[in-house]
Amino acid sequence: MSAAQVNRATASAAQERLAGLATPPGALGRLGEAGVWLAGVQGACPPRPVDDVRIVVFAGDHGVVDHGVTAFPSSVTPLMVRAFVAGSAGACVLARQHGAQLRVVDVSVDDDLPDLPPAVSAGKVMRGSGAIHLADAMTTQQCEQALVLGARLADEAIDDGADLLIGGDMGIGNTTPAAALIGASLGVPAAEITGRGTGVDDAGLSRKEQVIATALQRAGARAHDPMQRLSALGGADLAAHTGFLVRAAERGVPVLLDGVISVACALVAEDLQPGSVAWFAAGHRSPEPAQSLALDKLGLVPLLDLGMRLGEGSGAVAAIPLLRSASALLTDVALLSDVLGS
Amino acid sequence: MSAAQVNRATASAAQERLAGLATPPGALGRLGEAGVWLAGVQGACPPRPVDDVRIVVFAGDHGVVDHGVTAFPSSVTPLMVRAFVAGSAGACVLARQHGAQLRVVDVSVDDDLPDLPPAVSAGKVMRGSGAIHLADAMTTQQCEQALVLGARLADEAIDDGADLLIGGDMGIGNTTPAAALIGASLGVPAAEITGRGTGVDDAGLSRKEQVIATALQRAGARAHDPMQRLSALGGADLAAHTGFLVRAAERGVPVLLDGVISVACALVAEDLQPGSVAWFAAGHRSPEPAQSLALDKLGLVPLLDLGMRLGEGSGAVAAIPLLRSASALLTDVALLSDVLGS
Repeated sequence: MSAAQVNRATASAAQERLAGLATPPGALGRLGEAGVWLAGVQGACPPRPVDDVRIVVFAGDHGVVDHGVTAFPSSVTPLMVRAFVAGSAGACVLARQHGAQLRVVDVSVDDDLPDLPPAVSAGKVMRGSGAIHLADAMTTQQCEQALVLGARLADEAIDDGADLLIGGDMGIGNTTPAAALIGASLGVPAAEITGRGTGVDDAGLSRKEQVIATALQRAGARAHDPMQRLSALGGADLAAHTGFLVRAAERGVPVLLDGVISVACALVAEDLQPGSVAWFAAGHRSPEPAQSLALDKLGLVPLLDLGMRLGEGSGAVAAIPLLRSASALLTDVALLSDVLGS
Repeated sequence: MSAAQVNRATASAAQERLAGLATPPGALGRLGEAGVWLAGVQGACPPRPVDDVRIVVFAGDHGVVDHGVTAFPSSVTPLMVRAFVAGSAGACVLARQHGAQLRVVDVSVDDDLPDLPPAVSAGKVMRGSGAIHLADAMTTQQCEQALVLGARLADEAIDDGADLLIGGDMGIGNTTPAAALIGASLGVPAAEITGRGTGVDDAGLSRKEQVIATALQRAGARAHDPMQRLSALGGADLAAHTGFLVRAAERGVPVLLDGVISVACALVAEDLQPGSVAWFAAGHRSPEPAQSLALDKLGLVPLLDLGMRLGEGSGAVAAIPLLRSASALLTDVALLSDVLGS
């Protein structure tokens, strides 16, 4: 398949409508631009409300955690998956606040989590992805399985009526493979893309940079191919997230991207299926340096910049009301012609 | 009267609660800080929801418009006041989207607006404030009357149950007195504080800078006194807005500030009644250079930076969901102790 085509006619009509509103030219700033984007991806001018928002959180563990690159141990991941099921994780709270639906999926948590319902566990690909500086994160077969899982989750949300999708992440250590994927995608060295994740100290940051550098070197030219890149440097959770984004773009459903994990997957999705990025908007700027580099490459500017580094999709979920504001403004603000005629 | 005291005990308890959430330290970024602020100004930890939000839009005209400092003529102001009454102005649309109540008040529009209801017109102070480079904007008596009007509007909103107040503005030319007030408050010259407002061209920008420089010179040392500053350099609409902010701080009700008008009034409010700023948070960053200088002086960092320059309170209204997110996160995210104990 290939990415769907954004509707240029409705986007263009929205640009004209924006210019005709009873507001000074450009006065709505980025909200005006977001409204035009919505009109294009919805194929509707004025745009429809962004009512039905679905968040899928892809959970997985990463072998690099055993090598001192994180502030927390892998044992936190299953605890947090249970917090998601209980609805008490940060992204769950934000989702309820903004009337969005969130589900968590165990893609590759290093725990059997036998107490969790099938909706969480049924698609599980593996127990923990490999330590990417020592070995591939997974086989290409496992990577394919994860991509298919992510695509299926997107299909389910879309078939259920989603107006907007968000991919979230949960997994100690996941900023290491995300940074490695971005480094490989952009051809930039580990020193420029390594961040503190959930707050690793200076020694850990140095180890993390070394792990990423070694992983990039180990993957070598294989990283030019997006599937090989995901298999070598990513993780099953990131592969599922990528499949989710690819399918959203195939189906022509807009996505609000989150932080470094989400944007790393968006870069791979764009490589796997060129044109996908037209369906993506950026929810927030992460303090991770790799995220900003990747957003620049994708040509996306985030709506929020609040220093959030929670992951989970939380930055994108916090930005949902801005898309709703954008849609409402373009739809309901008076036209200048009406105001002058009154 | 004087500004109410923020509750240090609940703010401190909120800081501790934030540190105890099942999130990495600092991971909620500015949303965590906003939650702590809410706990302090509400005197409640965890903070309450920010349900009842009231926006008062202060409308007025300005004599400087006759001197080529704006992109639009004063005749737009009454048209826009009618758009507010009809609910089709940008801030009205955003207010509906986010479940907030908005009222517009004619403080000093240069039109009798006889068709509008008493709730809009009853407090009118004057028809158009003076051209500040040639004469005072108003007498100190008119200024006092406007301050009282703004205080009364705050009282009405608070008595009616407001959890949060927003002051908005409507009036062609109002960024000129706002910049002049900020220049006088901070002691910075016209060149550093003059912006394009709703989009004045280069020649207009140059005239605007000259008008502001002349006004600052004309006011001279009188501008050291906040009442004299408002009377000489402001406008009745800005004085009413200032009275609104002062009363909110006296009553101990939080305010989300908007753009350059709102922040100019907040600076004067802080001078009139020191300690008021503790009750203010900043909703958005305006492209007007004076707004950023004033925010720095007040020690406030805005939640949004979307290039919006609509005025009307719109930037603050767009930021309401972020305060609601902040409150929900601090209230409903699991505590680390609960997650570890599960």
